[in-house]
Amino acid sequence: MLAFTGSRLDRADHIRADPEALAAQMGWRARLLALDGLLPALDDTGALQWGSLADADPQAELVFLGLDDGKPCFAAVPERGDVAPRMANPALWAAMAALSPADLAVYGGARSIVDWHARHRFCAQCGSATTIAKGGWQRSCSSCGAQHFPRTDPVAITLVEHADGRLMLGRGLGWPEGRFSALAGFVEPGESLEEGVAREVLEESGVRVRDVRYVASQPWPFPSQLMIGCHAFADDDALTVDTTEMAEIHWFARAEVTAAMADEPGARFLRPIDQAIATHLIRWWLERG
Amino acid sequence: MLAFTGSRLDRADHIRADPEALAAQMGWRARLLALDGLLPALDDTGALQWGSLADADPQAELVFLGLDDGKPCFAAVPERGDVAPRMANPALWAAMAALSPADLAVYGGARSIVDWHARHRFCAQCGSATTIAKGGWQRSCSSCGAQHFPRTDPVAITLVEHADGRLMLGRGLGWPEGRFSALAGFVEPGESLEEGVAREVLEESGVRVRDVRYVASQPWPFPSQLMIGCHAFADDDALTVDTTEMAEIHWFARAEVTAAMADEPGARFLRPIDQAIATHLIRWWLERG
Repeated sequence: MLAFTGSRLDRADHIRADPEALAAQMGWRARLLALDGLLPALDDTGALQWGSLADADPQAELVFLGLDDGKPCFAAVPERGDVAPRMANPALWAAMAALSPADLAVYGGARSIVDWHARHRFCAQCGSATTIAKGGWQRSCSSCGAQHFPRTDPVAITLVEHADGRLMLGRGLGWPEGRFSALAGFVEPGESLEEGVAREVLEESGVRVRDVRYVASQPWPFPSQLMIGCHAFADDDALTVDTTEMAEIHWFARAEVTAAMADEPGARFLRPIDQAIATHLIRWWLERG
Repeated sequence: MLAFTGSRLDRADHIRADPEALAAQMGWRARLLALDGLLPALDDTGALQWGSLADADPQAELVFLGLDDGKPCFAAVPERGDVAPRMANPALWAAMAALSPADLAVYGGARSIVDWHARHRFCAQCGSATTIAKGGWQRSCSSCGAQHFPRTDPVAITLVEHADGRLMLGRGLGWPEGRFSALAGFVEPGESLEEGVAREVLEESGVRVRDVRYVASQPWPFPSQLMIGCHAFADDDALTVDTTEMAEIHWFARAEVTAAMADEPGARFLRPIDQAIATHLIRWWLERG
């Protein structure tokens, strides 16, 4: 199971799109996700904590997350979003490690959307204040009439395999020494996934790829990426590293990748974290032999 | 080749990210894409028309589209964007039919980004006016410091095949009588591509799918979708149509799909337009037999 997938919530679009049906859900049965800013509050067992709507700041906007076994679940928009979401937050790491896969998925989806609201209170078209709509799945501008929807930003993340069987991995600027992962970048307007993969790999490494193949996808709530995991082949191994984005890029032999994924002491690099799709991609690559 | 892919422009990230390098491109060699609002201006041969930067409104913001065989290409942000992009524009249809695949890709990418600028002149975080940055691949707020990036909205579009070999296609509300295509919807924060496919198909048709498979992707500049084409299987054919989104949904036999894709008179439905990824998906499905 990929991290942040497998939420047990039913988004119940028929409810969020219907103001009366939504209002009917906002009663004593409703549950409110307990958040400390954008961090999850956990109970003693490491599960997400839930309260009632009465626990929310009376001024806070409420997002309808969906139904959990019929019970309506909400989250309150915090005062501030996360302008530059930093993974380097020990409390976040501890929570991600403690939460069950299903809870992690609920938290990730809730975090993305309440953070979006907190950072998008104004109309990008005219600058006026906007109001929450459709249970939090829209914001509306009463001044110019524009409708705004939560962002989901597709990111192509690619395992590049040389024709000789070595794997290209890179270390981003600011990452810990030794930590390597697959190259990634946002898919831009006007390009297909495959074109985005080819452009990003070429920009960052100077290497041209062929035979781009989709492998798997995963939501990533820092702040709201859709990580699209791919594999591609390269015939030329000459690297020209874009030092404005990457600290280093190397080709690794299969045995080196195997050692790193097994967390062997002395391995040539540190593997990506468990929750990253890169870990899934590398394991997929090793298993297919 | 999928429509809107295959642009010959090199986005040249090293130039757009470097203000001096970008300024050096804005001279007499620079070409400006001729647009009439958001519509392309075509020459007598049906090719995109290009002028010089002097042709732009002196007040207009300029977006660096990339290099075409070394020549810098720009587009000017029009006064207004397209709040509700309507495909039902005869001039747009004529242009899309006339343009070569490479020109269509250049136009699509340019349209998405200039339209985004025209509709995002203000900071969603604080409401202040923003300014164009990084050659048009960012907007910056000098008031609160927020950076905003062009949107690319991932859409899952899915061919659902019943285990007995029939294909599910639907007609959206407001579509012409008889016109059917694959079911589609935006991937939302907190879900994987596969989860988005399953949710959208269930919402619109009441049918649960299994074995979701990626097939192909395509940018779609109305306004800035990344269409992610998938295939999935269903075991139950009982339809519960969401009439707030779909006019009708039906299961079609392979022979009916074959007839429609051949534009046979008397075919049970009208196939999607050539430029739609749905056409590619259905042809892919017919060819794999």
